[in-house]
Amino acid sequence: MSVGTGPEHPVVVDPGSSHFLALPEGVTPVGAPKGSGGVTYPEGFVGGGAAAGIKESGRLDVGVITVVPQHRAACTGAAVFTHNSFAAAPVQVSRKECALAKLAAVAMNSGNANACTGPDGLVVARAMQAATADALGLGPERVGIASTGIIGVPLERGALDRGVRAAVATLAREGGAAFAESIMTTDRFPKALALDISTRDGVVHLGACAKGAGMIAPGMATMLCVITTDALLSPTVASSLLAREVGHTFNRITVDGQMSTNDCVFLLASGASAVTLSAESVNQFGTALRYALLRLALMMVADGEGATKVMRLLVKGAPDDEDADVVARAVADSTLVKTAMYGRDPNWGRILSAAGAALPSRTFPGVTLEIGGVQLVDRAAAVSLSTEERFRLRSVMESSEVDMTLDLRTGVGASEVFFADLGHEYVTINAEYHT
Amino acid sequence: MSVGTGPEHPVVVDPGSSHFLALPEGVTPVGAPKGSGGVTYPEGFVGGGAAAGIKESGRLDVGVITVVPQHRAACTGAAVFTHNSFAAAPVQVSRKECALAKLAAVAMNSGNANACTGPDGLVVARAMQAATADALGLGPERVGIASTGIIGVPLERGALDRGVRAAVATLAREGGAAFAESIMTTDRFPKALALDISTRDGVVHLGACAKGAGMIAPGMATMLCVITTDALLSPTVASSLLAREVGHTFNRITVDGQMSTNDCVFLLASGASAVTLSAESVNQFGTALRYALLRLALMMVADGEGATKVMRLLVKGAPDDEDADVVARAVADSTLVKTAMYGRDPNWGRILSAAGAALPSRTFPGVTLEIGGVQLVDRAAAVSLSTEERFRLRSVMESSEVDMTLDLRTGVGASEVFFADLGHEYVTINAEYHT
Repeated sequence: MSVGTGPEHPVVVDPGSSHFLALPEGVTPVGAPKGSGGVTYPEGFVGGGAAAGIKESGRLDVGVITVVPQHRAACTGAAVFTHNSFAAAPVQVSRKECALAKLAAVAMNSGNANACTGPDGLVVARAMQAATADALGLGPERVGIASTGIIGVPLERGALDRGVRAAVATLAREGGAAFAESIMTTDRFPKALALDISTRDGVVHLGACAKGAGMIAPGMATMLCVITTDALLSPTVASSLLAREVGHTFNRITVDGQMSTNDCVFLLASGASAVTLSAESVNQFGTALRYALLRLALMMVADGEGATKVMRLLVKGAPDDEDADVVARAVADSTLVKTAMYGRDPNWGRILSAAGAALPSRTFPGVTLEIGGVQLVDRAAAVSLSTEERFRLRSVMESSEVDMTLDLRTGVGASEVFFADLGHEYVTINAEYHT
Repeated sequence: MSVGTGPEHPVVVDPGSSHFLALPEGVTPVGAPKGSGGVTYPEGFVGGGAAAGIKESGRLDVGVITVVPQHRAACTGAAVFTHNSFAAAPVQVSRKECALAKLAAVAMNSGNANACTGPDGLVVARAMQAATADALGLGPERVGIASTGIIGVPLERGALDRGVRAAVATLAREGGAAFAESIMTTDRFPKALALDISTRDGVVHLGACAKGAGMIAPGMATMLCVITTDALLSPTVASSLLAREVGHTFNRITVDGQMSTNDCVFLLASGASAVTLSAESVNQFGTALRYALLRLALMMVADGEGATKVMRLLVKGAPDDEDADVVARAVADSTLVKTAMYGRDPNWGRILSAAGAALPSRTFPGVTLEIGGVQLVDRAAAVSLSTEERFRLRSVMESSEVDMTLDLRTGVGASEVFFADLGHEYVTINAEYHT
């Protein structure tokens, strides 16, 4: 097997070329056109960003994206929020005090998460929502808000207020990129994309941008994502598609097993394409949405702190899907498995041990494990590898994407997760970051 | 109060060195007298070890401990095994093919875990049990077995057979230390102790040795432990005490959240003291057993791979004990929390975030958090610290033991865990160990 310590220089996966992604029928990625940040690529959106001094660096830290006035009567929205019981103030406000079905704008800030800030934090979050609504001429209930950054430090209302108004003053079709930049914290690279979706009812467009490195960056929360489309979507379709596809994508990635206090995903549908989707086309749109979210999710995993590779683990043959999921997450979150991957070691013993601990007191006598198409375990025991197989395995372990299939050979339950390895840089980043 | 019958020599670990340990009434630690390895300190036991070449280093790798023949008629036993669904062959044999209530001997080997070795592994495990029984003149069902070391590699039956017979040939009252040494793998220091327990029914003795660094050393399973006593214990009392106290101790430590394929704890009671314990004394014995197991458990955490400190986390005020346990383990296993501790950073935001993710979709508006007696969080928001408090907190974070109390202020559920931090050495050890 390979020798020595893990690689000194992380290999950043090009998510556009990920072999985990299959382009759905009728979908054409157009990248994120300059200035759009992905999110203002579909018709009917403008975006902007401003530097309000919340980030000490003086970089953009407040962003606004909105449906343009002529489409606000018919536009729809949806959102998915963290289930963390210490959800940040903006999450609480967006979840409880928004008419998500009629969402027309989103305001976000970086540099301060407004989390664990008590009743004062709620006041500041409501003020953020109100200032945005006021500047845009919308009811506050039509503005979703989100924050990311340091936890437990009061977010200054005045700076936020000025930032929101400054961001609104810059709103433009080419302002999506400024919006995308304004939500970045520890990301090493921006995460955005734009798609053309050719349905039999007509062409609609989808744009998206996200921030996140680690499922939660050090002490700084968060995964934030905004998806825009010019398709006409009913609120029910928008919310059910979003919930389902977030479940298939963002909820299936793990860098360190954490769900932050600030995670949220917003979907805005302007309807500006005037294309009404038939049931079949809605399905197609859902598939495209899944592709988009998985692509962003893989960018986040690849941007995981100190990550050198991304693993896809399929657990199948489990008693049921839930059991499969428990096993998949246990293996993906096992520090022993993650450090083995970092060391390029196909350590199947650790994978089986993590799986067996996650579903205790059962028997899986038929269990098999494949890594990169090489079978390592058969009927719960090691397989003797040929020289060619060893060579292939070594090459798989040196690549930036590793496929693993654990088959418990018991039932039909299955689950898939994507996860990063864990190396010295993760420890350095997370031990050296200080509150 | 007896000070022990064996030679009074080195105390392996000063029991006063952990402020997490309180010496129970009537209990006197006598260290592990030279040669005893802790386990042959009580009356009625002999032990021994041999080098069978299973470890490449040529060190001791097979050990046997047994009740001496004159006490075998009345001796009793008990055991607790891993619940890992890929339990190793020796675990399967000990669990299913032993008369644990009448256990009179334990044989163990290091260097090879005999795990994930299929039906052949079971044959080898049964042969190990039979060889030991044959050499000792016991029925095989009275011999418990355990293995630790590399996973998935066939364990050679011949070497094991010779090793067992050689170990039996060395059996002596001073052979406990050789036994203890024969089960070590990646341990940086031996883990053993001996106690005098002064009850109103008379003095009884307790000895113990264990191996384990990390809850599971890299790829090499395992936590193994043997406890001996010369108290007269009924099988029912022995097994209920052992299960309860393992639950309070070994099951409350976590280095990396893993439960190995080979973990097991054996208790042998020779009855050689002829002291029958009243109900009250049984309680006292249980308290002493808890002290002994917690002491060994803390040694394991402190010997965790690359660990620089040990944390005790008490979660209280939870809806119930089970919820408290879920939160405690989530915080203890959070790599973000563990790396913060390594970096000496009292990062309460990560602790709250891990807790909130573990018990999702609730509200804990009254939550408080203390680290080293300094209150950092009150009603889910940060507390402003005085200069003196900051200074105290800094000193706490630089110490080798850190106390944390998270009070969810909701119910009366409580749970306590002990865990290690996670540093560069953990990554190095676990990334460089190769299968």
